[in-house]
Amino acid sequence: MAEKQTEEKKSALPSKSNFSEWYNELLLTGEIMDVRYPVKGLYVWFPFGFDVRKRTYAIIRELLDKDHQEALFPLLIPETEFMKEAEHIKGFENEVYWVTHGGKNELDVKLAMRPTSETAIYPMYKVWVRSHADLPIRIYQIVNTFRYETKHTRPLIRLREITSFKEAHTVHATWDEAAEQVKEATRIYQEFYRRLAIPTIVSKRPDWDKFPGADYTMAVDTLMPDGKTLQIGTAHHLGSNFAKTFDIKYENLNGEQVYAHQTCYGISERSIAALISIHGDDKGLVFPPEVAPVQVAVIPIIFGNSEDIIKACSDVAEVLKKDGIRVALDTSDERPGAKYYRWEMKGVPVRVEIGPRDLKNNVATIVRRDTGGKETAPLANILEEVRKRFEAVHKSLFEKASNSLNERIINCDTLEEVKERITNGIARIPWCLERECGLAMEEAVGAGILGVPEGDLGSGTGKCPVCGKGTQNMAIMAKTY
Amino acid sequence: MAEKQTEEKKSALPSKSNFSEWYNELLLTGEIMDVRYPVKGLYVWFPFGFDVRKRTYAIIRELLDKDHQEALFPLLIPETEFMKEAEHIKGFENEVYWVTHGGKNELDVKLAMRPTSETAIYPMYKVWVRSHADLPIRIYQIVNTFRYETKHTRPLIRLREITSFKEAHTVHATWDEAAEQVKEATRIYQEFYRRLAIPTIVSKRPDWDKFPGADYTMAVDTLMPDGKTLQIGTAHHLGSNFAKTFDIKYENLNGEQVYAHQTCYGISERSIAALISIHGDDKGLVFPPEVAPVQVAVIPIIFGNSEDIIKACSDVAEVLKKDGIRVALDTSDERPGAKYYRWEMKGVPVRVEIGPRDLKNNVATIVRRDTGGKETAPLANILEEVRKRFEAVHKSLFEKASNSLNERIINCDTLEEVKERITNGIARIPWCLERECGLAMEEAVGAGILGVPEGDLGSGTGKCPVCGKGTQNMAIMAKTY
Repeated sequence: MAEKQTEEKKSALPSKSNFSEWYNELLLTGEIMDVRYPVKGLYVWFPFGFDVRKRTYAIIRELLDKDHQEALFPLLIPETEFMKEAEHIKGFENEVYWVTHGGKNELDVKLAMRPTSETAIYPMYKVWVRSHADLPIRIYQIVNTFRYETKHTRPLIRLREITSFKEAHTVHATWDEAAEQVKEATRIYQEFYRRLAIPTIVSKRPDWDKFPGADYTMAVDTLMPDGKTLQIGTAHHLGSNFAKTFDIKYENLNGEQVYAHQTCYGISERSIAALISIHGDDKGLVFPPEVAPVQVAVIPIIFGNSEDIIKACSDVAEVLKKDGIRVALDTSDERPGAKYYRWEMKGVPVRVEIGPRDLKNNVATIVRRDTGGKETAPLANILEEVRKRFEAVHKSLFEKASNSLNERIINCDTLEEVKERITNGIARIPWCLERECGLAMEEAVGAGILGVPEGDLGSGTGKCPVCGKGTQNMAIMAKTY
Repeated sequence: MAEKQTEEKKSALPSKSNFSEWYNELLLTGEIMDVRYPVKGLYVWFPFGFDVRKRTYAIIRELLDKDHQEALFPLLIPETEFMKEAEHIKGFENEVYWVTHGGKNELDVKLAMRPTSETAIYPMYKVWVRSHADLPIRIYQIVNTFRYETKHTRPLIRLREITSFKEAHTVHATWDEAAEQVKEATRIYQEFYRRLAIPTIVSKRPDWDKFPGADYTMAVDTLMPDGKTLQIGTAHHLGSNFAKTFDIKYENLNGEQVYAHQTCYGISERSIAALISIHGDDKGLVFPPEVAPVQVAVIPIIFGNSEDIIKACSDVAEVLKKDGIRVALDTSDERPGAKYYRWEMKGVPVRVEIGPRDLKNNVATIVRRDTGGKETAPLANILEEVRKRFEAVHKSLFEKASNSLNERIINCDTLEEVKERITNGIARIPWCLERECGLAMEEAVGAGILGVPEGDLGSGTGKCPVCGKGTQNMAIMAKTY
């Protein structure tokens, strides 16, 4: 069904330089999301988009399942539990949807639709955690969560129903072990995004921008085509804050009851927003092979007698399928150009064409979606040749995106400079780490401090632009989604 | 974490003959569901239970993905859409949870939490369906749905959050094609349940018990250990009822705009309730190998010098794992008896033990969870021997369950007989199909008519116990969950 719709449509995409229009049109024409659902901020996953989601989340599951367990907790949280952690409430009270009626009855206790699941999970952790031998606990779930967004909503990015929230919640004996887990979480997320060919920056969020109820928050950001950053993962050290609220204690080796230490970390369908936005182009979607619903389109180039060519294409398709590759053999009646259009729009990483001359030479023409580069390859080696292209496509998507990110990190010395250049990307500027200076910087620039990034990006020498003190910390600032 | 908890617990299960107590205790001790969440009717999937769920739903996905597509629609439905179909509203209005507030604001339009998704999906189908070439559409989603149950709630069976509702929604050109799809749906469900070794009865529900808004409803039932039937799947022919309400039309070959015909069909975590209840025994869970989180427990039987035995066990585990079998090699310090207890509780279908005498003879002892039967088998053939046991366990679970079901279908001639014998199972009795007689039968017996089953079970000769007319239709009646 959905495919037919697109064929009829055949609308050209707006240029990617008009990012916002391009994005909205691509979601529909590329059949990722339908934005025509009759409630603001709620969207429908098309089957094709859902396929991308499934493959993307299979990666995060694979990475987590090494030492996490998947579980499932209820969506509805009684007001009494939800209201227990003071900071947490303040952070969410304006965003929570409340269920007040069941049938025609008013409920005795209002139910919050989880905006995140700390207050649903930790009452259970209280029951589950008894002794140091029970720790660590590392559990995650992939669920829908809800936020009553009053800002402008945007599919996959700012939603009222986050349909695909992967949230992990861990419990540890000590603060240090929890801190290690936060590091591990950002490491896993970076690995996840490398698999999606998405470059990331990890930084510690300023104290005023941390998760409500956390000791500190580490965040994973990427840079979108329009120069704004998108937060695509966070990991929070919760200290014993929630453990004290929810009475999560364990018996230590000395037989004493002590509070546990916790972390939580999450990823949402923003991962898909980044995937689509960063790799896509004026012709449509571009996927790294691992998450592409169709990995190879095989297209016969037919003039006159065509049986041999169709046979050759069908053989190629079989060879590839046998090796687990997802293949579409397109023997429809359309002109090759129309077929190219369709499979390019759908982000198919590799196209294999066989025409009369190819067949005579026992070769196929292999076309890469990302570069448009054409090469011929012997039919006898078609599987290896295709697999080689998969690697090359992934590598080159990641390099291109990484270069594009690095080029748009601009070193600045003054706030005027930041203000002027921040529309193109990320500004990097010395910061003394003082709260007052940070807030003044944000105020002056009209944009947020993402934090001090891990690694070289976050260190250097310079003077805080507000107080003038020398510092070896470099902050990054950006317009954010 | 979870495992340790059980070890400490070591509570023996109540006998399965006290079904209700046994069921509740097994869910906790077997680590399927935690019922201690602080809202009635909402439960927590333990990681182990979630693993069973994942494997069970992988089967239904595999069966559906042949000609369905998976998608995802929003959970919240605006009151305006929800209230469109009159019959449908009547069926659900007492069961719907209403979201009335976002943050501190009252919403302009109340939002219903989907009890089922017709009214969320069909406004989109209106947009998607244009021409006969768009049909059929076969889409499904696996989602959480909500019912404000006022009856006694029960984990996996009667829930306020159905966490695992698989609902398919199809659109067809003609009424007959939709009827075919309903048949196909019950065929798929029966295949699904055969994979779970669960015997089923398919029958057409009486008109007064059909889905609100449907032309008719086919239902899949099974019989629980306590003699009550559990509805574990339904398929509804919606005719053009919803198409008219939601204006779903297509252009036919003559260029006319005509209403489409629809079906929907669903399965929930009741499939897991049946799986656990039907196969489990006084020792705990019993799983068919396909859905068992652990398929083989390998246990060294150690006296004195044990390196050789542990080596042999570890080799066996490796051989099995290499073939994709899920193996637990239990080298913990406990006595063999404690290990047996644990893995039996967890429903592991096959246990492999190696002791000194086994090793000397180059054999292993293989124990089946379902029968307790022990056999020795050569270590050299261990993979084949284990695979053979898998098949045998599945086959024998299905046979045992089928026999148990068939034995508890009781042919009755009078309503007194039905009333007396229905506490043990299903009563089969002639019925003239008239509504008045059917309602009178239900009234007299204090139990429901499930319908007239497909196949031999539903046909015979006799006289309707109410009007005395001769009939060739046999109805089945039962106490139901």
